[in-house]
Amino acid sequence: MYIVIMAGGSGTRFWPMSRASYPKQFLTIVGDKPMVTATYDRVRKMTSADRVVFVVGEVHREETERLFAAEGAHILVEPKGRNTAPCIGAAAGFIDRLGGGDEPVVILPADHYIARPDVFREALVRASDVALGGGIATLGIVPTRPETGYGYIECESSPVQSEGVLRARRFVEKPDFEKAATYLQQGGYYWNAGIFVATPKVLLEEFAAHMPGFHAGLTALAPTCGAPGFSAAMRELYEGAESISFDYAIMEKTSRPLYVIPCDCGWSDVGSWYSLYEVRKNAEQDKSGNVVEGEALLHECRDSFVISRGKRLVAALGLEGVLVVDAEDALLVADLRRSQEVKQITEMLKEMGLKKLL
Amino acid sequence: MYIVIMAGGSGTRFWPMSRASYPKQFLTIVGDKPMVTATYDRVRKMTSADRVVFVVGEVHREETERLFAAEGAHILVEPKGRNTAPCIGAAAGFIDRLGGGDEPVVILPADHYIARPDVFREALVRASDVALGGGIATLGIVPTRPETGYGYIECESSPVQSEGVLRARRFVEKPDFEKAATYLQQGGYYWNAGIFVATPKVLLEEFAAHMPGFHAGLTALAPTCGAPGFSAAMRELYEGAESISFDYAIMEKTSRPLYVIPCDCGWSDVGSWYSLYEVRKNAEQDKSGNVVEGEALLHECRDSFVISRGKRLVAALGLEGVLVVDAEDALLVADLRRSQEVKQITEMLKEMGLKKLL
Repeated sequence: MYIVIMAGGSGTRFWPMSRASYPKQFLTIVGDKPMVTATYDRVRKMTSADRVVFVVGEVHREETERLFAAEGAHILVEPKGRNTAPCIGAAAGFIDRLGGGDEPVVILPADHYIARPDVFREALVRASDVALGGGIATLGIVPTRPETGYGYIECESSPVQSEGVLRARRFVEKPDFEKAATYLQQGGYYWNAGIFVATPKVLLEEFAAHMPGFHAGLTALAPTCGAPGFSAAMRELYEGAESISFDYAIMEKTSRPLYVIPCDCGWSDVGSWYSLYEVRKNAEQDKSGNVVEGEALLHECRDSFVISRGKRLVAALGLEGVLVVDAEDALLVADLRRSQEVKQITEMLKEMGLKKLL
Repeated sequence: MYIVIMAGGSGTRFWPMSRASYPKQFLTIVGDKPMVTATYDRVRKMTSADRVVFVVGEVHREETERLFAAEGAHILVEPKGRNTAPCIGAAAGFIDRLGGGDEPVVILPADHYIARPDVFREALVRASDVALGGGIATLGIVPTRPETGYGYIECESSPVQSEGVLRARRFVEKPDFEKAATYLQQGGYYWNAGIFVATPKVLLEEFAAHMPGFHAGLTALAPTCGAPGFSAAMRELYEGAESISFDYAIMEKTSRPLYVIPCDCGWSDVGSWYSLYEVRKNAEQDKSGNVVEGEALLHECRDSFVISRGKRLVAALGLEGVLVVDAEDALLVADLRRSQEVKQITEMLKEMGLKKLL
């Protein structure tokens, strides 16, 4: 089995901790290691290190090499970020060239949290079985709340092939609250975690059918794999590549049956400070629902999230549902439930020309 | 007229900006100069600089000299803080020795805010007239809200002597809200600002009557004024001095008539971060009621108070009624209306042995 860890993103959702040059997947924000390392460790026991491929941007090549080169893992550098379709296409071509064309490839983002890794791995093994048979499988996370921040996969009501494998009916965009509540109550809807399993051969056939121009580029690139011309060929490939997600480009268009492996593994995409708070709360909250990291002093606070990494004491008094993130050169204080709006702050910084803080 | 500016306090109500060695009166927290300088400037035009006496603690002698020695003002150093009665007694003895025994002395704290200094000075002039006649006069601040954080002075209903001068009936401790509301509605109650005017002769007579031991010490001290033995004599005086407020020790016990000059000068004791916010709001609030100082970025915040002095950007998102004080080595985030509880934080710091932050 091959594993592709997509670590190319460059978000600022965790500003002021995440920066353009130091995005979420390289941060240690839950547990004691960077998310990308936790992701690697989680799947590492399913295969050998030389069957793991990291896909990263040029700015993170060095950090990724530092973390994983000694392991023997592969590092595939994207010349620029073009969303997940080109990323997955390039990885499929790369693994095909390594001789893994008929092996299942698990494709997963580097920056998700999984509370129950055993359950997660079991689901990936099931998905690999499906992929071996020529199908495309995706994990369907069993929803636990009427979440409006995730896309959903609606499934056929009866299992196919075998117990625990469903057939996808359609992909559903992020719903409003009412719809999300209906999905939860009705059943048959799963969160789309963006975790896919298929063989490179199948993936490349799909690219040939739905992104033929990009597929032609992949074919032209193939002979340069592991050769001096590879970087230049990748640059050329990405120059002409459309920025599009794998969901849109392939999953929603394929005529192949799509299989869903329902999975109740305590998954979170950790997409905001609030989401991180929810993840860490389970293990770390004090009796008033606060999560505190670093040198901090709380007096009569509730449901708050305080992170002190600025080498200074943080004192919090009478707060309710407040987020405090004290970094070396910037401080964020926010309504914890509105923490996804941190984007507004980074936009303002951009407008003000405060690039050093981004 | 003499003026005594009591600048000996050492509070931490404005933690993390105020510290034991750098208390509120030496901070620039409203306007563009330290409170003690603003106080001096406010009363300076009422007399000559050599008739101004600063009373400070040993730790603030240097800073006070730096600020005011060139002006020609006197600096009286207390060996230790013993509340206002010993402070006022020592100042009265000192001025008596300077030859001002029969002149009115205005005694006022260094750390109050006055929105309308002209109105304030007018009241002090009236109070001085009363003092010249041998009375003790105090300013009675016209209450503008049912404040529970101040002591009150209840006055006789009809003016005495002349228009605008009242006779005090009794001093009232900080009331509960219901009582405060009654005081406000009923009239005849004024906030006790702790600002007194009397001649040194009258004050010393009062000390002789109500703190005879301390008065004896003052008498023994007098010949050393301006001589080498003065510091040692002051140490001896304070060693035996009771720590007690002038209100308790003298004002509530005197058999002399007490006069109150009602004064609507926009006074505040600036006793907490919330109180400072209220004071600064008038001039500085944005359209959402926020007061912001320093490098800070607010997005959809309301009624919040953000101070950035840590040389870092402070970003605030969706806050309502939150206080953020970013100092060099510590950060406070608090419910603005509970900011007087910052004492709990400094107590915790003390218990934790984090003296460097106090």
